[in-house]
Amino acid sequence: VTGRVYLVGAGPGDPDLLTVRALRLLERAEVVAYDELVPMEIVALAAPGAERLPVGRRRGRGAVPYRVHPAVIERARAGKMVVRLKTGDPFVFGRGGEELEELAEEGIPAEVVPGISAALGAAAATGIPLTHRGVAAAVTLATGHDGARLATPGTLVLYMAAHNLERCMRELALAGRPEATPAAYVEAATTPRQRVVIGTIATLAASIGDPGDAPGLVIVGDVVGVAAAIASCTAPPALRVRKVGS
Amino acid sequence: VTGRVYLVGAGPGDPDLLTVRALRLLERAEVVAYDELVPMEIVALAAPGAERLPVGRRRGRGAVPYRVHPAVIERARAGKMVVRLKTGDPFVFGRGGEELEELAEEGIPAEVVPGISAALGAAAATGIPLTHRGVAAAVTLATGHDGARLATPGTLVLYMAAHNLERCMRELALAGRPEATPAAYVEAATTPRQRVVIGTIATLAASIGDPGDAPGLVIVGDVVGVAAAIASCTAPPALRVRKVGS
Repeated sequence: VTGRVYLVGAGPGDPDLLTVRALRLLERAEVVAYDELVPMEIVALAAPGAERLPVGRRRGRGAVPYRVHPAVIERARAGKMVVRLKTGDPFVFGRGGEELEELAEEGIPAEVVPGISAALGAAAATGIPLTHRGVAAAVTLATGHDGARLATPGTLVLYMAAHNLERCMRELALAGRPEATPAAYVEAATTPRQRVVIGTIATLAASIGDPGDAPGLVIVGDVVGVAAAIASCTAPPALRVRKVGS
Repeated sequence: VTGRVYLVGAGPGDPDLLTVRALRLLERAEVVAYDELVPMEIVALAAPGAERLPVGRRRGRGAVPYRVHPAVIERARAGKMVVRLKTGDPFVFGRGGEELEELAEEGIPAEVVPGISAALGAAAATGIPLTHRGVAAAVTLATGHDGARLATPGTLVLYMAAHNLERCMRELALAGRPEATPAAYVEAATTPRQRVVIGTIATLAASIGDPGDAPGLVIVGDVVGVAAAIASCTAPPALRVRKVGS
């Protein structure tokens, strides 16, 4: 018997932002294989008897020498039901495609369960719409080092941009965006440690201070100004980040 | 007492792809206001005593003359807890920003709960990664009529493109994309009626036949070919769409 591997999006951080499907799979998983960036509150939702396998590494600690962790393949071959938890969505900078390719080569049945990607979580938690009539008709999701060079229309969200933010902002300006374009830095979106800094392409890098260990992303575009307009005429709790578990 | 309005993403169609947060809010909502495109299986998850308010109109039946439906404002003013269900994610072509602006103007506390946007649902259900190493380093979400003209790098997802697909494909080619670029049409993603057609910019429009009433989107880019490669060497059930409730 061959088991099955579920590539499951764990969402942006808040355990309540798992999908119902992801939660049910977690609760009946025999093995839970998770990235270091998946919050432990989410891993803890697995059944008490499930084997917990930390796999993958944080950004910056060297390349991962495999696509699918060998233990995941071994457990699936032994007939186990494996949930492979990935932060955000498996198919948006989650390398889910690479894992799926290898599982297919190995003949292991696989299924992908989508998750709330960090951009969507950060947008909801800050009140910044990613598209907005008359302001942004499209949104591009990219990563810091490549994305800043893109001359895309509409909103641009840069994942994994915290640690080279100054360079990213400089490249955005070089790519033709006005230096006064609003930009928001969102760290640890949807978690109790969420931190939001609002500025412009010219000012943001100097304003964020020391980026934490948590994932950070940057939303660039006039939609950032829309959120500020909403917040300024709203009662304080309205746009506050909900605490986990509330 | 003023109530509260939750702008809640209902996800791409499969009720199991609601977030846990969305499901819990639905279960305790006093009023559920929903677009016509939200599946009735999802509206049915509300408590039996909740008032159900169909608001908003389908595409093509004329513009909606309000941002927030007047009944939603009236119920919130009367102290009710209102869940405003929107297909996909409220901030990705969901007009959530406009509703949030009006709620702020009215002084009604509001909160946004993100949802699985159609692009993420369709990607997971078809095995098409939106980003993939060496193939696509970014993904742009746009709508059919505007989006096809964009010369964006990486993957392009066109929402609401089913009913003017031929024109969209022509404009993609005019914008400089090779006619042989792979493209996938996904209708009613993540539901039992899901339909997927794979082709190229040159062939897709002629292949889809009559688009249904269900929302359809198009994924354009070489990532579509990655999925085909995975599917061809995978056991049949692996990439099949899961039926609702399984």
